[in-house]
Amino acid sequence: MITVLGVPEVVIDRLPVYARTLAELNRKGRQVVSSQELGEELGVTPAQIRKDLSYFGRFGKQGRGYSVQRLTNELRRILGLDQAWTMVLVGVGNLGRAVLSYKGFTAEGFRIVAAFDAHTETVGRTVGGIRVYNVKNLASFLTSNPADIGIIAVSASGAQEVADLLVGSGVKGILNYAPVALRVPVGTQVKNIEPVLALQSMTYYLKTAAP
Amino acid sequence: MITVLGVPEVVIDRLPVYARTLAELNRKGRQVVSSQELGEELGVTPAQIRKDLSYFGRFGKQGRGYSVQRLTNELRRILGLDQAWTMVLVGVGNLGRAVLSYKGFTAEGFRIVAAFDAHTETVGRTVGGIRVYNVKNLASFLTSNPADIGIIAVSASGAQEVADLLVGSGVKGILNYAPVALRVPVGTQVKNIEPVLALQSMTYYLKTAAP
Repeated sequence: MITVLGVPEVVIDRLPVYARTLAELNRKGRQVVSSQELGEELGVTPAQIRKDLSYFGRFGKQGRGYSVQRLTNELRRILGLDQAWTMVLVGVGNLGRAVLSYKGFTAEGFRIVAAFDAHTETVGRTVGGIRVYNVKNLASFLTSNPADIGIIAVSASGAQEVADLLVGSGVKGILNYAPVALRVPVGTQVKNIEPVLALQSMTYYLKTAAP
Repeated sequence: MITVLGVPEVVIDRLPVYARTLAELNRKGRQVVSSQELGEELGVTPAQIRKDLSYFGRFGKQGRGYSVQRLTNELRRILGLDQAWTMVLVGVGNLGRAVLSYKGFTAEGFRIVAAFDAHTETVGRTVGGIRVYNVKNLASFLTSNPADIGIIAVSASGAQEVADLLVGSGVKGILNYAPVALRVPVGTQVKNIEPVLALQSMTYYLKTAAP
């Protein structure tokens, strides 16, 4: 199991889902939730929830459940969601345009500050309120405007070069939409958006369920 | 831990990555690979690989490593990747257009056969070689042309309704791009593409690494 700082990566991957579900309960006015109920909302066992949370301390009282507000805040603090994050996007094709137009990032504190593309007909445009610059100026832009995260929305063949540029310019996190395994130095975080891999594990169940 | 048919879901989720890496080794002409080497390629421990594969039988001989070709084929068979899968897409906005134009699905045996949208200006068009139909005709289309998987690329507010339509028309797998937790009956597989969740677990590491 891959662990960083003692907490398994699969646990970290589950926490945002917990935080989102708790925030929803909070909006509905719920004040307390049991691990049983939370498990039902999330489709995981109560024991799993208790075990996952135990890595970070004690959040509930035996038999009393969790304070929805307090657990939401704690999870957001643990995940670093109580601060704002800046992002740049590289590659303004159909996918890049969809990402730039997507409202879900800003709502959660992830702000795209600039986009970059290699095509002269795209450079200078504004997409989803974000200005598109020439990718040649990516490094110099990042020197003046350090960003936390780079979004790669170029084709598979160009993705590694963009990743190298981002890493060389001090970007520590990459959200990669290109269908390729990026090589990055230790300390750089990569999350891949891989619809094909998602489909390829889904078919295990579709195949097995078929008559 | 969520298990189906005795194999943990996290194991199933890793197998496509193994299969992809093995296919790449195969293309490079490699005939045999040790769990040590495979682990290095994948960033997981050799013990993890051996444990994951042990759910499905014995694939290597002690001290001899795995036959790249045979393990690739076995994993593809286990995952159902040795057969073709048909898909319909609903929602032809920026994101839907990016998905329709993406070449990675067909290359891996996932074929989009039709797209659906509610906007009259989009209906009747062809995007990425795929015809766009009125979403009102989704159910009748699926009755005549059963599909394995539905791709949801509509907004969050419309996603559940589309999911209900797909499920009601016999679709057993959903690839969901909308940022919402869909409610589906037992036996329907949902995979969510969630860039925000990916970012929200990444920031755990970015925050922790910061000085």
